[in-house]
Amino acid sequence: MKAHHIVLEKLISPHQLSISMKYRLKVVPLRSEKFTVVLNQSDAEDLGLLPGDRVKVIVGKESFVAEADFTNLVESGEIGVCSFTAETCRLDEKCMAEVYPVSRPKSVEFIRKKLDGGKYSAVEMKSIIEDIAKNVLNDLEISAFILANEIVGMSEEEVQWMIEAMVENGERISFERGVIVNMHTIGGLPSNEFQLIAVPTVASAGLLIPKTASRAITSASGTADTMEVLADVNLSIEEIREITEKVGGVIAWGGATNIAPADDRIIRIEHPLSLDPRPQLLASVMAKKGAIGARHVVIDIPYGEGAKIESGEMARALANDFIELGKRLGLEVVCALTYGGQPIGRAVGPALEAKEALKAMEERRGSASLLEKSLGIAGLLFETTGIANDGYSYAKKIFESGKTLEKFREIIAAQGGNEKIKADEIPVGDKTFTITSQRNGIAKKINLQAVNEIARSAGAPKDKGAGVYIHKKRGDVVKAGDPLLTIYAEKEWKLDNAIEVATTRKPLEVSGVIIEKFKGGY
Amino acid sequence: MKAHHIVLEKLISPHQLSISMKYRLKVVPLRSEKFTVVLNQSDAEDLGLLPGDRVKVIVGKESFVAEADFTNLVESGEIGVCSFTAETCRLDEKCMAEVYPVSRPKSVEFIRKKLDGGKYSAVEMKSIIEDIAKNVLNDLEISAFILANEIVGMSEEEVQWMIEAMVENGERISFERGVIVNMHTIGGLPSNEFQLIAVPTVASAGLLIPKTASRAITSASGTADTMEVLADVNLSIEEIREITEKVGGVIAWGGATNIAPADDRIIRIEHPLSLDPRPQLLASVMAKKGAIGARHVVIDIPYGEGAKIESGEMARALANDFIELGKRLGLEVVCALTYGGQPIGRAVGPALEAKEALKAMEERRGSASLLEKSLGIAGLLFETTGIANDGYSYAKKIFESGKTLEKFREIIAAQGGNEKIKADEIPVGDKTFTITSQRNGIAKKINLQAVNEIARSAGAPKDKGAGVYIHKKRGDVVKAGDPLLTIYAEKEWKLDNAIEVATTRKPLEVSGVIIEKFKGGY
Repeated sequence: MKAHHIVLEKLISPHQLSISMKYRLKVVPLRSEKFTVVLNQSDAEDLGLLPGDRVKVIVGKESFVAEADFTNLVESGEIGVCSFTAETCRLDEKCMAEVYPVSRPKSVEFIRKKLDGGKYSAVEMKSIIEDIAKNVLNDLEISAFILANEIVGMSEEEVQWMIEAMVENGERISFERGVIVNMHTIGGLPSNEFQLIAVPTVASAGLLIPKTASRAITSASGTADTMEVLADVNLSIEEIREITEKVGGVIAWGGATNIAPADDRIIRIEHPLSLDPRPQLLASVMAKKGAIGARHVVIDIPYGEGAKIESGEMARALANDFIELGKRLGLEVVCALTYGGQPIGRAVGPALEAKEALKAMEERRGSASLLEKSLGIAGLLFETTGIANDGYSYAKKIFESGKTLEKFREIIAAQGGNEKIKADEIPVGDKTFTITSQRNGIAKKINLQAVNEIARSAGAPKDKGAGVYIHKKRGDVVKAGDPLLTIYAEKEWKLDNAIEVATTRKPLEVSGVIIEKFKGGY
Repeated sequence: MKAHHIVLEKLISPHQLSISMKYRLKVVPLRSEKFTVVLNQSDAEDLGLLPGDRVKVIVGKESFVAEADFTNLVESGEIGVCSFTAETCRLDEKCMAEVYPVSRPKSVEFIRKKLDGGKYSAVEMKSIIEDIAKNVLNDLEISAFILANEIVGMSEEEVQWMIEAMVENGERISFERGVIVNMHTIGGLPSNEFQLIAVPTVASAGLLIPKTASRAITSASGTADTMEVLADVNLSIEEIREITEKVGGVIAWGGATNIAPADDRIIRIEHPLSLDPRPQLLASVMAKKGAIGARHVVIDIPYGEGAKIESGEMARALANDFIELGKRLGLEVVCALTYGGQPIGRAVGPALEAKEALKAMEERRGSASLLEKSLGIAGLLFETTGIANDGYSYAKKIFESGKTLEKFREIIAAQGGNEKIKADEIPVGDKTFTITSQRNGIAKKINLQAVNEIARSAGAPKDKGAGVYIHKKRGDVVKAGDPLLTIYAEKEWKLDNAIEVATTRKPLEVSGVIIEKFKGGY
């Protein structure tokens, strides 16, 4: 850790027009992504600052607003900046900083209003979202925003304004021609890699589909993690546009662009509080689709026991919210309510899922549920854009003719991957362990949480080859000795951890054929 | 900044029962009051950690739970701890740390329940408060707690449990004999130092009054700041008890004790969000009084335009809440609804207020409102403890007989101050500026916010001699050239700032005698 001293004497100007002191800059190793400065405790008191207050810092021609922190990491007369700030503002040696207390941003008052049960105006919402995008609001203030919205609630109009502001405060694409579509899944279940099949199917019909996907937060593999096994997903927004115009589609990681940065900040704060409030979910999905220029969007809403959404009724309500919001924003939204109580395919983990999807495309057959879902979702887009009346059949034709695979290879190539790769060539973890059945019987429902935990313990998604393969799904006949699950890992110690988890968590049980001994008499 | 390397190789134990890695300890300069550790990003991912997650750290016989942060301040295989953690846990060289992810504390689920509109059970509330007191919950989680309580609301019963838990999780006093009383002011107006007169008045009647006071957060002087001009206020809870038993009372700074630490943490988070939610206010006051062993408490609730509480109706509602809570907790509470629209005395700032109070006690006369309030508040305690039927008169007798001053001197002596000090000897800022009236007329209402801002710009409360003296209060006759306000400062540049503020903010206006020219005809 180098201390970078920027040296000039502390100047005290006795006839200043407002409270301001000059300080000697010092770069200190703060762990901070945002603008933070540190002042000596005594200096901070002189400036009348309290924890959480902000200051304006002027260094030569550069100025910025930062949150002030008080420590004794710096001496009186010094102001500490983190290297992020120093680099961003191109701060040099031989400069001094003027420091002024500044008042809290107006956005905080607007959040206050919502806390008191009020309603945002369009201008107020836009101010808040802009301040979040520009790192003007700190984590506490953003959490107050999220909580206030969740508890007090928001009208459709307020959510619309939030989405519009999120889109405005970030990068956007606008395509000059073509019909721009997109898809999204609420997720929450393992082996849900259908988009790897659906996207190229849609693209080969002539629609443009610039798909941005997420990395896993708590799951074993997000769509971006799975695609990354085959190609580069860290595409800039410009690359997304170019590739989409060239080959018809991409599967990229949204986080490498600067689309709707306010949404990303909000998501980062939601996780530690286990929040997933409805207004934010709606806004997050719609903002990302709006920014990418989509006009038609299909949203997959899996529901069922153990899924994110438990009942069909709740799924329909969510679907309705999306559709109504879409109307307000000029997006045509169609929702697919799909089964979320069991994994779609059999593979869980980046490489295993990529392998499963690619193999299905190569062989033009595979897990019935995986194909049904992939082609069904693609089919909804064909119907909504008027390409076909029976979207599923149209999608199936494309898939079985080999066009899906062909297009997928084009997309892989355009994203810098090896388009010649075969499913069998995709490496998976070489440290494996297979759980076999102790008895004859029928496979019961798979415990989704347990499977996820095992895959993550094994190293997914960080270790791309790690994960779980499910041999028996619900209802399958099982004989003693049959494999039930195989765990894959890249590191021995992770395999051991995963085995431990599997032993205690019972991901898949086998019941006897005789469920119950009945002795007559109701 | 020294990097303290504690050296042993990273051990990877392949057959561990749960995910755990061993790391080399490194002390890093984190600005953290609480347990935080830093892990290399890659190691964190291996452990399956996400931002906001916690880990258990075991070093030899010591172990603690800490929030994990990910940076590249440490290499793979190292774990960084801040010096606070290292000292608290007596971490040595030549030790290695085992690190386990641990799940979120149960308290977070309970807060989640309130967010969803539910009610705490006694056990849940106690768990949350204990976790706050022990630094187990982080700032985001505490802010979620505060906001959830404010928006969803709490029943009297829940607030009672909060108070009881706050008292339990901290230091307490129990006196063996005597009638233990106390007082509190909601504050929010300048020149409110009546407690310096009321406390010794109460003590000289034989009641025991262990008064803990606050330092100013946004005002020009808290009661603790004012008393500190004359004596040491950083008393431990043991000292508070001893001195109270010896001379009858103290005026100490509560922050030097460990009374209700959960309350302090909550207050620290409320300020940056400008929150002052009713449940927290009630709990904060009652917990502090409960912990100090009081049985009878008088609470001053100033109300009026510009005060914290605007109307008599709101003041009465708050008073009722305090009284009802008191009943639940076995505290007898009486409230004084006092005038809060104008300063009580004329002095604003620690030394100026101390001077004003001491002078009044020396001369046995002074600002009518200051004396009326001081003796009225003391009188309420005399009535509620059965010492007198007409408390005010009883208090007045004590004051005019010189007993108040005598007791005040005893308290000053017991708190390590110079009991012989005279009001005239108290030093105040020597950089002064007096604003005079440009016209004849009547002094109008003083702008409380402006006066506060001026005093703080001048340096109060950090510079004890800084502040404002108000020469003319509302209704006083003013001639051109008469002094209106005098600003005191210890530093020239602060005086200049204060003058600037006074010029733009107009703290005190003088209106012509003729308010309105009326020309007849209603």
